[in-house]
Amino acid sequence: MSVVYGTMPQETLKSAADRGIDRAKGIKPGEKVPFFACGISSVMHPRNPFCPTMHFNYRYFETDGGIWWFGGGTDITPAYLNKDDMVHFHGTYKVACEKHDKNYYKTFKKNADEYFNITHRGETRGLGGIFYDDLNEKDPEHYYSLAKDCLDSVIPAYSPIINKHKNDPFTQKEKDWQLLRRGRYTEFNLVYDRGTIFGLKTGGRVESILMTLPEIAKWEYDHHPEPGSKEEEIMKLFKNPIDWV
Amino acid sequence: MSVVYGTMPQETLKSAADRGIDRAKGIKPGEKVPFFACGISSVMHPRNPFCPTMHFNYRYFETDGGIWWFGGGTDITPAYLNKDDMVHFHGTYKVACEKHDKNYYKTFKKNADEYFNITHRGETRGLGGIFYDDLNEKDPEHYYSLAKDCLDSVIPAYSPIINKHKNDPFTQKEKDWQLLRRGRYTEFNLVYDRGTIFGLKTGGRVESILMTLPEIAKWEYDHHPEPGSKEEEIMKLFKNPIDWV
Repeated sequence: MSVVYGTMPQETLKSAADRGIDRAKGIKPGEKVPFFACGISSVMHPRNPFCPTMHFNYRYFETDGGIWWFGGGTDITPAYLNKDDMVHFHGTYKVACEKHDKNYYKTFKKNADEYFNITHRGETRGLGGIFYDDLNEKDPEHYYSLAKDCLDSVIPAYSPIINKHKNDPFTQKEKDWQLLRRGRYTEFNLVYDRGTIFGLKTGGRVESILMTLPEIAKWEYDHHPEPGSKEEEIMKLFKNPIDWV
Repeated sequence: MSVVYGTMPQETLKSAADRGIDRAKGIKPGEKVPFFACGISSVMHPRNPFCPTMHFNYRYFETDGGIWWFGGGTDITPAYLNKDDMVHFHGTYKVACEKHDKNYYKTFKKNADEYFNITHRGETRGLGGIFYDDLNEKDPEHYYSLAKDCLDSVIPAYSPIINKHKNDPFTQKEKDWQLLRRGRYTEFNLVYDRGTIFGLKTGGRVESILMTLPEIAKWEYDHHPEPGSKEEEIMKLFKNPIDWV
């Protein structure tokens, strides 16, 4: 959980989110922008390769110039596909989002597929979820209520999947595949993740920022899943995200 | 080994090296710059925690506008300190560099300490070596000869260290420390390394670019070496690089 008051260069503020608004409104050119930010995040990297990694982050940001926005999301990263689990996870977030706006789930699901993209690999980090940023058109209470419902959905969306798989037997080969996918997770977080780059560049607390990394990650030269394997099955979905609900 | 002909945006060319010269000389504003580049690299990540990781890269770059430069370096990344090994490694490169210019080793050693810095951690990736970039003031043959001698020094500088330690017994705790240092190696390469970022941004071959990553990397929340331990001994040197020869 982070609650931060600070100032930052106007250029850095731009990298905090990608919408083209003037976040330095009310601040003179060249002057640092005083801001307030708060957020709550968690990442779970279970040891069993049949238990997916799950990450969420919900945050609020405002500048002394009166610019504010909400952002957040919850996403899931399995090493192996279980369709029922994905329908359950995405379905839970569909209900939570559509309670607030009938277009939210569809938009936020698409955002997640686009955001969690490892561009240099041409594949996603996982099997998506929801992601939103820069929301400020409606009343702040509307977005606060959305964030609360999304947070309250973490346990119903994720814990049944963990309870179902936490004792699944697995082989060393399956464990190795999970660790290779955690190598990809590391690539995404260190090369592309907005929060990570923003945090490292603004002198944030390193241990808090990099707690998103897995305990262990693996790389193997030019690895390709065997044709017809379970590894290839999920890799196709990393390359071409689909709708689950 | 890479031999590449291509074109790239003028802004991307700027990130290929950090000297303030006009690399787009002879090219119209907005037009892509045709270039030729070649290089040879290697990274060794031995499994025994008493065998240091070693990396070298030597490269030549030229544009169709007639701008050219040489770059390169060899550096060593132990998980545990062995002073004699570091004196041997640095001493071998001191001899190789000073054969070409009496100031080279001193300058290149300082460059390496500055370049291989994990800024957000306030520590270096390893115990340095030599690094140079953007060399073009002298005749190209001078720099080609320097690169050849530096390459010919890789085996004499590194292999005695491996032969000495390849059968050293080690504990799981020592292996874990090596893997934590490989987590740091991964952070440096994905967040700061010029060649990695340049390669990923210009659509280079991912497997060739990321072959620098270790087989296995580890992260542990808020890890600190025990006071008085061997891990703390080397960590002090990552935080404050010293002269070896």
